[in-house]
Amino acid sequence: MQLSPAIANLIRALKVLPGVGQKSAQRMAFQLLEQKRDGASQLAEALAHAVEVVGRCDTCRTLTEGVRCQICSDPQRIESGILCIVESPADVIAVEQTSQYQGQYFVLMGHLSPLDGIGPNDIGLDKLATRFAAGGIEEVILATNPTVEGDATAHYIADLARSNNVKASRIAHGVPVGGELEYVDHTTLSHAFSGRKQV
Amino acid sequence: MQLSPAIANLIRALKVLPGVGQKSAQRMAFQLLEQKRDGASQLAEALAHAVEVVGRCDTCRTLTEGVRCQICSDPQRIESGILCIVESPADVIAVEQTSQYQGQYFVLMGHLSPLDGIGPNDIGLDKLATRFAAGGIEEVILATNPTVEGDATAHYIADLARSNNVKASRIAHGVPVGGELEYVDHTTLSHAFSGRKQV
Ligand SMILES: [Zn+2]
Ligand SMILES: [Zn+2]
Repeated sequence: MQLSPAIANLIRALKVLPGVGQKSAQRMAFQLLEQKRDGASQLAEALAHAVEVVGRCDTCRTLTEGVRCQICSDPQRIESGILCIVESPADVIAVEQTSQYQGQYFVLMGHLSPLDGIGPNDIGLDKLATRFAAGGIEEVILATNPTVEGDATAHYIADLARSNNVKASRIAHGVPVGGELEYVDHTTLSHAFSGRKQV
Repeated sequence: MQLSPAIANLIRALKVLPGVGQKSAQRMAFQLLEQKRDGASQLAEALAHAVEVVGRCDTCRTLTEGVRCQICSDPQRIESGILCIVESPADVIAVEQTSQYQGQYFVLMGHLSPLDGIGPNDIGLDKLATRFAAGGIEEVILATNPTVEGDATAHYIADLARSNNVKASRIAHGVPVGGELEYVDHTTLSHAFSGRKQV
C-alpha cells in the first residue's frame, strides 16, 4: 500500500527532527493533518521564516536575526569585561536562566575535535584571539561541556587567554561529568559559576 | 534574556507536534538552524503542501490527496465485499503491513465518546449506514482499538451491520487490551485477523 504522496513526503521530511524516527514521524504527520492544520501551517511559516532570517551574531557567533545579538548589543554587558565561552546557543539560554551572570558570551558552535577535522578556526578561535588582542576583556569563564572534548577545548582557550594576559577560569562544582550543560538544573549551574577556579 | 523573535516563534510553533515540550522544541529549533537548514526548508514546504492538498477520501474517510484514496479505487478490493473498520489512518497502515487483508477500509477518525459529545455521525456512521444499505458489502471486520470506547464503537457498528444483513466480526487474539492498534507488531495483528469471531 502506497501512502498518498504528500503524506509520505511529510513523514520523510519530519524525520529531519532530532529523535524522530519513522513511527514518530508518521504519528506526527497524521495528528497534524487530522487535528492541527492551523498549527501545521504556522510551523511551516515559522520554519521558512527562521531559515531565511536567522544567521550568526558577528560578535559572539550565536544564532540571531540581524547583525548583532541582543546580549552583544548591551552596553552594561560590554563594560563587564567578562566573556563566557559556551559550546552552543542552548548553553547561553541555560546560563542566562541562572540570572547570575551579567557578562558577554562567545559561542563556539561545537568543540575541538581533531579526529573529525574540527580545529581552532572551525569553532571561531581565530576571531576570539582577535577579540583578546583588541583588549577590553579581563576574564574568560570557560563553560564548555565537562566532556573530554569540552575540557580539551577549555584548556586550549585558557592558553590562548593567558598569552593575551586575560584571566581564565573554568566552571566547576556540580556539573555532572559526561553530561550536557543544556540539561543541568539552574541551581547546580549557579553553584558551578560561583565555584569557578582559575586555570 | 530574550531569544531572537524568529527563533522564539519557531520554538513555540514546534510545540504543536505531539510529545514535544519546551526543551525538545528548543533543541529541535537550534539543531535545525545550526546544522539542518535544507531539511528545515524541506519540512516547511512538505507541511505547507500537505495542509493544502490532503483532504479526506470521499469513500473511506482516510486522509488522502484527491477525491478517492488508492485503496478505495482498487477494483479487486471493491469486489472483495469486505470492509475493515478502523479508528485512524495509522491503523490502515498497520493492517496493510500484515499483507494479509485484501478488502476495503472505513476510517472512523475517532470512536464513539458520548461524554465528549462524539456521536455516530461525528465518526461517519451515517455514511457507513448508507454504504451498507447500498449493498455490495458482505462482511465488516471491526478493528477498532481494544479499549472501552473502541469496544463500544464496535458493538454499535455490529448492530448497524446486522440490521443491514451484513456479517460482522471483531478482531481477536493477541491484541493487548488497553493498547493501541497502531503499535501492535505485524504477527500479532495477523493472528488477530485470522482469529476473528462473529459478534
Ligand atoms: Zn552576540
Ligand atoms: Zn478511501
